[in-house]
Amino acid sequence: MSDTLLLVGTGLVGGSFARAAKARGVFHRVVGMDRDPAALAEAVRLGVVDAAAESFIGHAAVCIAVPVAGIAACVRDAVADGARHNGVPVFDVGSVKAPILEALQPVPPNYVPCHPIAGSERQGPAEARADLFEGRAVVLTPVATTDPDAVATVTGYWEGVGARVVTEDPDDHDRRFALVSHLPHLVAFAFMEVAAEGPLDVVGNGFRDFVRTAGADPDVWTDILHANAHEVRGRLDELLDVLASYGTMVGDDPARLRQRLTQVVANKQSFDALDR
Amino acid sequence: MSDTLLLVGTGLVGGSFARAAKARGVFHRVVGMDRDPAALAEAVRLGVVDAAAESFIGHAAVCIAVPVAGIAACVRDAVADGARHNGVPVFDVGSVKAPILEALQPVPPNYVPCHPIAGSERQGPAEARADLFEGRAVVLTPVATTDPDAVATVTGYWEGVGARVVTEDPDDHDRRFALVSHLPHLVAFAFMEVAAEGPLDVVGNGFRDFVRTAGADPDVWTDILHANAHEVRGRLDELLDVLASYGTMVGDDPARLRQRLTQVVANKQSFDALDR
Repeated sequence: MSDTLLLVGTGLVGGSFARAAKARGVFHRVVGMDRDPAALAEAVRLGVVDAAAESFIGHAAVCIAVPVAGIAACVRDAVADGARHNGVPVFDVGSVKAPILEALQPVPPNYVPCHPIAGSERQGPAEARADLFEGRAVVLTPVATTDPDAVATVTGYWEGVGARVVTEDPDDHDRRFALVSHLPHLVAFAFMEVAAEGPLDVVGNGFRDFVRTAGADPDVWTDILHANAHEVRGRLDELLDVLASYGTMVGDDPARLRQRLTQVVANKQSFDALDR
Repeated sequence: MSDTLLLVGTGLVGGSFARAAKARGVFHRVVGMDRDPAALAEAVRLGVVDAAAESFIGHAAVCIAVPVAGIAACVRDAVADGARHNGVPVFDVGSVKAPILEALQPVPPNYVPCHPIAGSERQGPAEARADLFEGRAVVLTPVATTDPDAVATVTGYWEGVGARVVTEDPDDHDRRFALVSHLPHLVAFAFMEVAAEGPLDVVGNGFRDFVRTAGADPDVWTDILHANAHEVRGRLDELLDVLASYGTMVGDDPARLRQRLTQVVANKQSFDALDR
């Protein structure tokens, strides 16, 4: 077995895994593929990957770091080109899991579905950072037929770059991330659409934090939101209900609003205590 | 004229002004009032103020740092107790301006309406920081009858603690801050209400930033949202419209969603360039 990682997709997340894996000795060499030749050339030039890959074959592992809509096809390519026969682990970094698993039926046993909870609104290989995963969680969502050895190997990669690994059912994962990640992005995008009329020359840090994720890659996020549309809509409807009742209370029932906000702030404090 | 500031309300913002003003020599002494005796005692103990104030009379200026609903009454108290006769500037730090001015009709000429764009979700005198206003904007919303000398004097105080002063029409101010501050808080509160069902043990920084303001003081924010309810509702309705159309597009029209998000991300980049 070679000690080379094949990285498919040389953007921020994939590039950061490549930099981290080499810095920590998880892999000694990383070769890259990218549907965008300019991004691949930049990744090579910056040393994010050592060289452009010739094929899917002959590597110790395959990391698929492409937008969600392209992951299942890449997994199939990796498996068809021989990775499965070598028992080589294939893993991804997608923010949505169940639709990929559905598209792959039957799921190749050497595919380990992964979602690192790390990223940035910044984009591209130039933003890749060797410390992106340090202290971060990575959610693995293996299915019944996933090879436990592949899970153990991929867990070792993530731990090797400083992350901690947790395991979750794919549907639970998608439901939970619809709430804690996809909906905040959707709302930040919508808010920035409303705010565009400005003027925005004097704003506070609350505004900056609230809209930070609205600078994310629109292609990546369209894919995520569309792939997880059912769960995102469910959680959006819950939010719209609460916002509608807040909208009534701000004018008509401040006493009731105060009660609701007092409870919310208590929830936030519990979250902060848990999150510390 | 004495060189003593009277601070009414010894929380984070007022306490920070007191600490900054003394550290920078804007005032040599600060005496405090607070409707909460425990907060006042803590402010004295921590040195945020030098002593409890005996009355509204005999100070160089009065800073009113109480929740929005209490500001007009405090301004009236300050003026009735003699501040006007001394030509002493009275200024506040409230996040909403027009309703205070309406409640005060006729507006005392020595009252200078102020809104420092600085704060924190933290609360209380223990969180007061001498550097809170450094490099921050303070919006002044004087009216036609406001004494220009009072405006000049109060501008000097804010510049003395490191802030830059901008002037805005009170209604424009309230409309703009409904969008850039009050609505993000309302949405963060609503989101945290939905998110409370959790589990929230594995979340990313996007979530943390998005909900940060949901830890703010529920009394302070009920006051702000209620005082500015008309503008907040208007902007909330715009946001709900956009969210409803996003909710449809995520499932049914990802191509159109991608177009909208691409435009939004461009808006965000323009904002970032302006904000740098």
